[in-house]
This record gives sequence, structure tokens and C-alpha cells, in this order.
Amino acid sequence: MTEPIRIESNSLREFVANVLQKSFVPESDSLLAADVLCTADEWGIRSHGVSRLRSYYEMLQNGRIKAIAKPRIVRDNPTVAVIDGDNGLGMVVAAAASKIAFDRGASMGAAWVSVFNSNHFGIAGYYVVKGLERQLIGIAMTNTPAVVSQFLGTERMLGTNPIAVAFPAGKEPAVVIDMATSAVSLGVVENALREGTMLPPGVIASATGTWSTDPHDFVNNGSLLPLGSNSLGSAHKGYCLTALIDIFCGPLSGAQWGPFVSAFRTPATNSFRQVGKGIGHLFGALSVGAFTEIDTYHERIDDWIRTMRSSPPIVGNPPLVIPGDPERNAAQLNRALGIPLDQTVALDLERLARAVCPL
Amino acid sequence: MTEPIRIESNSLREFVANVLQKSFVPESDSLLAADVLCTADEWGIRSHGVSRLRSYYEMLQNGRIKAIAKPRIVRDNPTVAVIDGDNGLGMVVAAAASKIAFDRGASMGAAWVSVFNSNHFGIAGYYVVKGLERQLIGIAMTNTPAVVSQFLGTERMLGTNPIAVAFPAGKEPAVVIDMATSAVSLGVVENALREGTMLPPGVIASATGTWSTDPHDFVNNGSLLPLGSNSLGSAHKGYCLTALIDIFCGPLSGAQWGPFVSAFRTPATNSFRQVGKGIGHLFGALSVGAFTEIDTYHERIDDWIRTMRSSPPIVGNPPLVIPGDPERNAAQLNRALGIPLDQTVALDLERLARAVCPL
Repeated sequence: MTEPIRIESNSLREFVANVLQKSFVPESDSLLAADVLCTADEWGIRSHGVSRLRSYYEMLQNGRIKAIAKPRIVRDNPTVAVIDGDNGLGMVVAAAASKIAFDRGASMGAAWVSVFNSNHFGIAGYYVVKGLERQLIGIAMTNTPAVVSQFLGTERMLGTNPIAVAFPAGKEPAVVIDMATSAVSLGVVENALREGTMLPPGVIASATGTWSTDPHDFVNNGSLLPLGSNSLGSAHKGYCLTALIDIFCGPLSGAQWGPFVSAFRTPATNSFRQVGKGIGHLFGALSVGAFTEIDTYHERIDDWIRTMRSSPPIVGNPPLVIPGDPERNAAQLNRALGIPLDQTVALDLERLARAVCPL
Repeated sequence: MTEPIRIESNSLREFVANVLQKSFVPESDSLLAADVLCTADEWGIRSHGVSRLRSYYEMLQNGRIKAIAKPRIVRDNPTVAVIDGDNGLGMVVAAAASKIAFDRGASMGAAWVSVFNSNHFGIAGYYVVKGLERQLIGIAMTNTPAVVSQFLGTERMLGTNPIAVAFPAGKEPAVVIDMATSAVSLGVVENALREGTMLPPGVIASATGTWSTDPHDFVNNGSLLPLGSNSLGSAHKGYCLTALIDIFCGPLSGAQWGPFVSAFRTPATNSFRQVGKGIGHLFGALSVGAFTEIDTYHERIDDWIRTMRSSPPIVGNPPLVIPGDPERNAAQLNRALGIPLDQTVALDLERLARAVCPL
């Protein structure tokens, strides 16, 4: 792998926003979507960053995603709202929906907003950190195209279905969880394919459901394994988690679910059926102040964080971290040095720039 | 392992309730606690069933748990309540707290009830299925004594912290998730110790944090591994899940947390500190009717269930299941044939009966 090219973070945001605007995305929406994508790269989650700009661009160009979408509330209760995303950019729909969840959580103590007819929303963690200053515990989840097999299954039946949860802290930085519920994310397999390397055991299965270390077996109708990898590692738990998020985001919201979530990159093995509309999300908010005095909670969570960080690691490892530390450390570095782009991604963005603005 | 002895389910409930009553637990509370314990055995979760009666009995006898406790609401908002469990039996406190969460969820659309100063509440799944008939999606979680290491850690810093979520269905049986967030539960290690067998790799670590298959290494200050087992299997995700539940149940509620959760069976390695009161729980309720028409949701979830069940399994395996199927199948069998008890457990209960009612 060659050295990444580093691009100053505001320049990259501007570039991404411009590409989206050329596809008729309104300016404010384009800035927001650019911020989600570039934040992913800043946090070191490159598989969800600007490397995906081309697929968003193409989906906007061919009308698969609406550039000018009008998400609207279709069901409205004080603590629960349901939003039709109008097939807009997932990042734009998700930002609007999570804002509603947070506003209601702040006033009601607890709230949920479910979304259907949306699209891939980037990193789940982006949305939940927006509630931290308001002392809200934020929850975000989404279903995604089916690439994961059920426990003991053979087919691609569920997405990597990520969940993010952020807990505000006092003097310490927040605890921010953001994780796919499969053993590894699709990006790990894509990397192995690109670099011609093998995968560790317990990550993918071939089309028959048997473990494989060859990423090509995934391409040939194989699947990602649920978190836990097999019975000994309790992969039924990974299956439970992925299923949980799929039900919250699909059957509950009215979006597609399971093997029928629209797969624009990796077709699922099952024959497609229309069981709902688009991709689904669920956003939750819990107001810390509804549970306890905020200062008291801050003291407790700061103590929790310091306690977890101060426990001795396995010899030879760096100090232990809390969820959110790796992304914060990456962001600090990348904001100072510029956002790192793989050379293939940088080349692709250059080509995209020429396609958007031919001279 | 010898054949289990089977006891008729109502007789076993009556026996358990009697033992608790002899320890001054009020009749209705004793019946409830007996139902939680016997339901665990019926569901096939024997580690959480009547095999624990002795430890509850002893804690009641020596005043570690209050027989006559008065849990009370100490913070009260329409969608969020906080309950002081008054150091009562966890099953009694949890049933009361989850009932409040469900009542408020039904009227408000969404609600959370957090609990501190409680004790071990048995199986998390018991509480969430109570919301199914009311068309509530129920959530239950608890922290538990620290036996799990952090990702790349060496010490017992977190509990096996289970979570249960139940989704109502229409014509199909409900989707009921109930899982510890460690790679395996403590019961698996206890079984290996009792039967003198080794453990599979990826389940426990020795005191230095290195993998072991010898259950005695767990006893000697070792730890259970987080779900995912190691970096390749994404054990940082298991750590995130366990941490998530600990923060919801501890720092948010005012209960003990992390390494300081009172460990009556397996002492944690860290020096004990008083950071809160007792064990903590969190119960959530989402009303399906607040999100969508119930009939519409029923059609969707039934379709989801049938789709997941009909996908082909790995050759040689039985048909695929949805979360809740294994426990339902076990319960059907055990209600018909009687609840199975290991001979050691049956003997222990006999001894307990003689201690409670000496003739």
C-alpha cells in the first residue's frame, strides 16, 4: 500500500459539496453531506468517507436518489415520529430526523424517530455526537444492504447494520460507540480484494456457509459472518444484534428489510421483493437530566472513563481506551495534517472533478 | 453428565416460593421470584434458574438482600422514571420497574425506567415478554458483577451485562432476544469446572490477558473475553456493548458500575469502591402503535420471521431459527415433561428444603 495523500479538511469539504451541487443538491444539503463524508475520513473510517462520493454522485445522476428531496413527518406523537425520507440523500434525511429526535428528547425526556424511504447515511456516529452538548444520550441505527448470513445460514440475509450510541461526559471526552454488528465491515473485505491479501478466519463464509479466508469466496455469493463468527464464539448473539437493528429500521418503520434492502453494490442472493420503501433508520434520544442531576452524572461518567482507561493492558499494548478514543485520536491527527486519501481514491476524485466540470 | 431429574413445573414454583417465604419474602413477591427462576429453567437457561435459589436464600438469610423491600420512584417524569430498589430481590424490583416502563410506554409512546440499589434479576427476557400482548417493544438490561475484561485488557472490569429485546408479532411467535454481551456466559465456565472439561479458545483469558482453554485460569484471576474474542473477531465491539449496558445501568442510574458491581460469587480483581448503590437495570418500552398501524406492522414482522426461517441452513443443520425459537422450543418440552434439574442441583434443593423446614 502506498502512502496516502493528505488534503486540507476544509478544501476537501468544499470539493465534495461542489460535486453534490453540480448534481442539483441544494447548497445547505451539500455542505451537510460533505461534512458527514469528510468526518468519516477524519475519524479514520475511510470506507464510509469520500471514497463513496462517486457512488452517491452516480445515484444522483441516474435519479436513483433524489437531489431535491422533501423529507416529511408522516406520523407524529410527542415522543415518537415517523419520517418519509422522500428517497433523499441519507445524510440529509438522517440529520433532519436525528435533530427531531433530539429536540423531542430534550423536551420530553425520551423520544424516538423512525425513518423509511431513505438511503445510506454514512457513519452512524456522526448523528449521535450532535446531542452531546445538549446532554442527550443519542442512539442511531440503520439497516444496510444484505451481505451478512444468519447464524448457521448460507445466504446474504441481513446488513452489517451499524449502531451508534453517545454518552455525554463532564471533564472527560464523551463515550462514543459506533460499530457494525457483523464480525467485520464490508470495507475489510474490499480492502483484501484490492490488495490481494487473505482474510483472517471467522470473518467470511463461502456460498455454502463454510468459513473461508479468500475474499473472492465472498464475491461468489459468500457472506460476512455475524459478530462472534461461529457457535463457539456465540455468533447467535451477532445474529440477534443484526436482526434487532433490521426490525427496528425495517418492519417498524416501513422501509425494506433483510435480504430486500436495496443493494447498489453487492447483490443479495435472494430474489428481490418490494416489502417496504428504501433504507430505514431509527434515532433515539434520552435526556440525562430526566434521569439525574447532570453534575452528578458527569462525576460518575468521568470516574467510569478514568477507571476504564487506567486498568493495565495486555503486556506490549498501549493504554486501554474507551469507545470513541480511536476516532478522536485519528481526528486530531487528520485535522492537523490533512485528511488522508488512498491514491486510488484521490485519482478517482480527480476523475470525478473532470467529469463534473469539463473544461 | 447424568440424566437430569424432571420436576413438574407448578410443584417447582411452589417449592421455590415456599423457600423464599420462609425467609420472610411476602407471598406475592415469592410467587413472582419463583416464576422468574422457574421460567429460566423452562427456557433452558439453567444457569439462571433454581440452581441459584441457594444463593438468593443465603443472601436473604444474612441480610445481604432485604426480604421486605419497598422500591420507590425517586425521580419522575412522564417518559422517564428512576427507581430505588431498596436492596430488594432483583426479580421483584425488576418486575415492578418494567411494569412502570410498559405502562408509560403504552400511554406516552416511549418510556424508560432506570433502577439502582437492586440485585441480580434473573433472566432479562422474562420482563420483556410481558409487554408483547400490549404491543410494546420491550428492552431490559442489567449490569452484573465484573468478570469480563476490556478489549486488550487483563482485569475483570465489566459484567456479562445482558440485554433483552422483544418484538411483538402477528400470527407468528414474537422475536425475543436475550443475550449476555460477553463471548460466553459465566455458566459455561462453571460447567467446564464442574465437569472437568476444557473450554474452546476465544472464551476466557488468564490473568495476563492471554487466551486459555483451562477454566482454572479463569478462577485464578482470569476473565471472560468480550463478544468477538480478539481483534480479528472484533472484540472491541463486544467491549462497546458491555460498556454501553454498564453506563446505562450504572452511571446513569446511580448503581455501582464496572469493577465495583458487588460480586457475591466471583470477586473482581480491582479493589472495591463505593461508587453507587447495588446493581442497576434499565427498562425501555416503545409502543408499536405510535410508529405504525398495528396490523401493518404485524404483516411486516410475520413476513420477516417467515423469510428468516425459510433461508437454507449450512448442510447438516436443522432449519434456521429466529431469536426466541430455542427458548420457546425448550419451554414447550419442559412444560410437558417437567423442568429438568441436574442431579447436583436437585440434591442441593433437597438439602435446602431440610434446612428451611427441619422436621
